[in-house]
Amino acid sequence: MGDRIAAMALASAAPGLSGEIDFVYGPLAGSDFPTVAWIKALRAVERQRRPRLEYEDPRGHLALRRALQTHLGQTRGMACSVDQIMIVSGSQQALDLCARLLIDPGDRVMVENPGYRMARHAFEAQGAVLQCVDVDDHGMMTAQLAALGRAQLAYVTPTHQFPLGAFLPIGRRRELLAWAQRSRAWIIEDDYDSEYRYTVRPEATLQSLDTQGCVIYVGTFSKTLSPQLRLGYMVLPPALMDTFAAARRLMDRHGATSAQQALARLLEEGSYTRHVRRIRRAQQARQRALVDALERHLGERVEVQGAASGLHLVVWFKALPASAEPALADAARQHGVRVYPLGPLFHPGAPGAAERRAGFVLGYAALTLEAIETGIRRLAQALTALERRA
Amino acid sequence: MGDRIAAMALASAAPGLSGEIDFVYGPLAGSDFPTVAWIKALRAVERQRRPRLEYEDPRGHLALRRALQTHLGQTRGMACSVDQIMIVSGSQQALDLCARLLIDPGDRVMVENPGYRMARHAFEAQGAVLQCVDVDDHGMMTAQLAALGRAQLAYVTPTHQFPLGAFLPIGRRRELLAWAQRSRAWIIEDDYDSEYRYTVRPEATLQSLDTQGCVIYVGTFSKTLSPQLRLGYMVLPPALMDTFAAARRLMDRHGATSAQQALARLLEEGSYTRHVRRIRRAQQARQRALVDALERHLGERVEVQGAASGLHLVVWFKALPASAEPALADAARQHGVRVYPLGPLFHPGAPGAAERRAGFVLGYAALTLEAIETGIRRLAQALTALERRA
Repeated sequence: MGDRIAAMALASAAPGLSGEIDFVYGPLAGSDFPTVAWIKALRAVERQRRPRLEYEDPRGHLALRRALQTHLGQTRGMACSVDQIMIVSGSQQALDLCARLLIDPGDRVMVENPGYRMARHAFEAQGAVLQCVDVDDHGMMTAQLAALGRAQLAYVTPTHQFPLGAFLPIGRRRELLAWAQRSRAWIIEDDYDSEYRYTVRPEATLQSLDTQGCVIYVGTFSKTLSPQLRLGYMVLPPALMDTFAAARRLMDRHGATSAQQALARLLEEGSYTRHVRRIRRAQQARQRALVDALERHLGERVEVQGAASGLHLVVWFKALPASAEPALADAARQHGVRVYPLGPLFHPGAPGAAERRAGFVLGYAALTLEAIETGIRRLAQALTALERRA
Repeated sequence: MGDRIAAMALASAAPGLSGEIDFVYGPLAGSDFPTVAWIKALRAVERQRRPRLEYEDPRGHLALRRALQTHLGQTRGMACSVDQIMIVSGSQQALDLCARLLIDPGDRVMVENPGYRMARHAFEAQGAVLQCVDVDDHGMMTAQLAALGRAQLAYVTPTHQFPLGAFLPIGRRRELLAWAQRSRAWIIEDDYDSEYRYTVRPEATLQSLDTQGCVIYVGTFSKTLSPQLRLGYMVLPPALMDTFAAARRLMDRHGATSAQQALARLLEEGSYTRHVRRIRRAQQARQRALVDALERHLGERVEVQGAASGLHLVVWFKALPASAEPALADAARQHGVRVYPLGPLFHPGAPGAAERRAGFVLGYAALTLEAIETGIRRLAQALTALERRA
């Protein structure tokens, strides 16, 4: 795998400039973290250290898995046993575990196009051959699956397609599950930001619809607490539980104990739920500020997609072709704002890129309302400057 | 890899019984953890949360890598750049990274026999073909390497051979490095417990002798703080730095930030060094109590090996053949004490096992002095009971 990784051109962002407003997707605001509750929980946990510090269950701390089982039942209507739950070091470790354990070099993997790059990379590092399924306003176009044939695995973001933001309707969900059954394929359901549904209710997960035991559900605390905590989880089909636990033990034994214990406390006490309610309001205020600023500064020149949920949206520039994305990103940077073209989220070589308009992913979870306003004003100035040059 | 792991018979200990005294190697005593300093450091870190919570450098938190660079220079005489240091989730993740990135299925890996099972398993999971190098009173018998031929990797514990406890002398170190140069092989130097040298000074590492850039040095905080922290580190040869960082990013992005920041504080403030000094005395007291109890209760019937350093020793039963190990372990369990036969630490099928005497690894780091005394008394009773039955 070393050779494959060395040969991969992995995205790595240039360092931020001072005063720059960065619409990168991923970071959260430090001020949104529930510091007081977290310190309290950590201190309680550290003071109750057990007499014997030993290696733990590779699936994670039992109290956290129990609390998550309840939480997933309440918030996502999911029914699963504690044994199906595995705590991971962020959802990336879940993707990597799936790639390692389910894919042999040369195996085919269905991915959304455009889609999440770090998932694509994890599969490619394992030697997978990616099969791109196009995405429209209703998410993965599952009707394409039959023509693409068999695959070992499909990776989907059905609750909030990354990056375009669609919700996968029930018909497509059933079509995907039927394809998986025919192909004897696994499905990874990445439910990365279901806590943030502003104008819509969260719907049932694929995992809940799965009667064959083929769906691997992946969730994360990186979007509600901090990406620096490295805490996520998977709900595994029973057939995979033992192998995943054995593999995890060989990979890194288990996740750090005290952070898991502290998180279990937040879940048990209800302070996690209160925190999510609070942060959802904060994120919605950012989302409104962003939509509002886009309307005021860019108006008819842009179209906004996927703003009903999550921590990012996509803005399309009506008069710019996809090929102009790098130029606008450069111009934006010269105006002190950083935006991220959609281009790299499309699979290289997939058809249709030529006809596409320019689009950008705007993440807002780490920005103040003022920064959002200033950032979009700068983006509008950058667009005007670019158009003048053309 | 899933099939290989599913087919592997991974060791997994039966749960402990109440009142049982367990000489398992690995756990530490909760009372030895520097709780006050750790909570103080954590609280300081949590209160200085940065305004932006983003994904970090896959190599780990910079302050911790800087502090470690200084620490390794002071305690191990090692010279390395901060870029060579990667923080890992325990040394197991370091072994797994090496296995994934350096080994293709069918590649040969040299391991010590007997040796550390979780390393062996990590290589086997990746499809490695293990080549066993025997161990004597001076560690790996490097003279055997030439006859065994080429390999992609060698895994050694040169400071304190696991489990037999030998220190690899300078001549053998040079022989190992020369073999690696001829074979264009990598060497993993697992320096898992160098903090605990009671009657001997820690010597230079293989990494310090390495002029070709082939040694991957692995260290851990699992033996000085807690295995539940999941904090270890590697010092990489420059040629491997970029690929390991890229791979780590795909595996789990990076380790949790605040524990790394807290540990950096302990190292910077000197409280880690004071803690190690204190815990070394505590461990030496346990080691003396164990050697003393073995002498009093088992006397001439046993021989102790590898007690000069570390957190475990090996006890050989002079009148028992290796084949009696399971029977003595069972008898011990019936007497309320748990001991671990050497047998499983030998590579299955390696020659010489038939002539060997019965031997056990006794770990003592999690036990009180009283438990050590009681445990060995019970072990002596179990031996007597077993001999009577025979």
